[in-house]
Amino acid sequence: MEPFQGKIAILGAGAMAGLYGARLSRAGHDVHFLMRRDYDVARERGLKIFSHMGDFEIQPPVYKSPFDMGVCDLVILGIKTTDNAAYADLLSPVLGPDTLILTLQNGLGNEEELARVLEEIQQRKRELWGERLAPEGLPAEPPPPLKPAERVLGGVAFICSYRPEPGVIHHTDHGWIRLAEFSGPAQKRTHAIAALFRSAGIDVEVFDSLPRIRWEKLVWNVPFNGLGVAAGHATSRMILEDDVLIRTARGLMEEVIVAARADSVTIDPAFIQKMIEATESMGHYKSSMQLDYEAGRPLEVESILGEPVRRARRGRIAVPRMEFLYGVVRRLDTLRRREQEAGE
Amino acid sequence: MEPFQGKIAILGAGAMAGLYGARLSRAGHDVHFLMRRDYDVARERGLKIFSHMGDFEIQPPVYKSPFDMGVCDLVILGIKTTDNAAYADLLSPVLGPDTLILTLQNGLGNEEELARVLEEIQQRKRELWGERLAPEGLPAEPPPPLKPAERVLGGVAFICSYRPEPGVIHHTDHGWIRLAEFSGPAQKRTHAIAALFRSAGIDVEVFDSLPRIRWEKLVWNVPFNGLGVAAGHATSRMILEDDVLIRTARGLMEEVIVAARADSVTIDPAFIQKMIEATESMGHYKSSMQLDYEAGRPLEVESILGEPVRRARRGRIAVPRMEFLYGVVRRLDTLRRREQEAGE
Repeated sequence: MEPFQGKIAILGAGAMAGLYGARLSRAGHDVHFLMRRDYDVARERGLKIFSHMGDFEIQPPVYKSPFDMGVCDLVILGIKTTDNAAYADLLSPVLGPDTLILTLQNGLGNEEELARVLEEIQQRKRELWGERLAPEGLPAEPPPPLKPAERVLGGVAFICSYRPEPGVIHHTDHGWIRLAEFSGPAQKRTHAIAALFRSAGIDVEVFDSLPRIRWEKLVWNVPFNGLGVAAGHATSRMILEDDVLIRTARGLMEEVIVAARADSVTIDPAFIQKMIEATESMGHYKSSMQLDYEAGRPLEVESILGEPVRRARRGRIAVPRMEFLYGVVRRLDTLRRREQEAGE
Repeated sequence: MEPFQGKIAILGAGAMAGLYGARLSRAGHDVHFLMRRDYDVARERGLKIFSHMGDFEIQPPVYKSPFDMGVCDLVILGIKTTDNAAYADLLSPVLGPDTLILTLQNGLGNEEELARVLEEIQQRKRELWGERLAPEGLPAEPPPPLKPAERVLGGVAFICSYRPEPGVIHHTDHGWIRLAEFSGPAQKRTHAIAALFRSAGIDVEVFDSLPRIRWEKLVWNVPFNGLGVAAGHATSRMILEDDVLIRTARGLMEEVIVAARADSVTIDPAFIQKMIEATESMGHYKSSMQLDYEAGRPLEVESILGEPVRRARRGRIAVPRMEFLYGVVRRLDTLRRREQEAGE
């Protein structure tokens, strides 16, 4: 399979998507980085990657605004799901009729939200086209070949990386991606995108079911992200070693597996033990949500905890522990934000 | 029914037991107060009570050590359950052969622990008596008329009071007590103790089942004490008004009602709605556990959350939310103590 060819945008080039973009860029692909906090440093000195797979530096094209990027063929989304309200503003300027969007974001609901926003953008462009150009007698814009939902792919990234300072990413472990189409089973283009990542030395598995890879990731993310915040800065090992909390962590995993049935996903309960064992080797690992909480950043509470609970409810599946966790973490997040606003 | 007559000890004369003791004292009963932080002020200036039922002051006998009190006929226990390890030291000096112990403490397991400690004290006294006095040819100590468990009564206090400074108690609402024997149905003496409280203007209901009054109180205590700590300083109203947390609060109440069956207690599920409505009128009420947490004091996590979970487990009753809450609050309590030790 030939790797996907074209202009690639990394929107939200942080520790995760920024690292993948850097590897693609180093492999010779045409990668453009949208940055906020890293822009000035990256523009001047480039991006420095310190990785257990080998350090490297690149000097890629970086942007502060998506308007300066122009239309891209593949957009890789790495923004925090707490910033999803920016989807329209970020995507509108880079969207051509065939542009594909791959979200590597956390949790559930991102692809649905993306499809909805793409539909709105398309509708708005059609209206603008009609208002401004139709009266001049110009030909109508040709209908885009892809429906909004068909432009969307989802990926689950298993990677340990962090950004100690602007322009610098540390990659400490893993890095593989599970990839699937939002609108159906894998296509040729799915495998082409997988080949793109592989050409940059990144392991990718292609799946026919996006809900499966999303829910399987939640089996770990729900307990260890959620309890990491709710149970007072508990690292993965602290949860494993607490005889009461570990029962709740396992119970949460069971609930995620049952809730996945609401999306017609069947996960083998033996998966729980596999996840527990994988976690045992992580040491005192802090989840992304826990790091966000400690740093006073907004938490990805809706995509990781809220949306799974809502899907379970719609499927009339009881998830008492997930609901408990969602309620507590949502409140801690709101409380923190209120305290920050009061302190400003 | 004639009120109980005799020498009364208040052990742990804080905002709750101190207030009851003060009312008994004002009514002319022979009440002796064991105090720690309040001792100096109370000895010099007495106890000042500010109550919606009328303010008053008393100048009762106060003590720093139970050894100075001597044997009492009725001991009213108001210490925090986190101090239950002090039972033996507190009770041993005031215990005569007929002394009754009424614990007004929170949660489950206090009466069992008391009976166990009384058994130990009796055993130790018997050994001392045997070793020291038997060789002199003195008559053996007569066996006490009451078995340890038969000396124990339990009471559930519904009272809003706090202690803003040493020697001062504010009583803001309620004050009634539910009373029962630990070892069986109500006896004459139970009604005599009820009459004692009533003679001081305190409402008392006598019950034949201690487990019932303990578990019914837990229907409120588990969610509102526990979530008040686990859900980031949430007052009762904040929990009621949060659409996700209120589901967890109701779910916890349901679990407490199911868990009560482990102690053969059947509670009507309609009790939940009654408790919710009673809570709605409380405004932004902070539970005792929440106040303890905010003040950096140890939490009554085992008596209010841990012991109910253990009883449910022994009865093979699933209590996922209670277990979740117990795990989180226990960890927050441990964490706080570790931080305090590190800070000292």
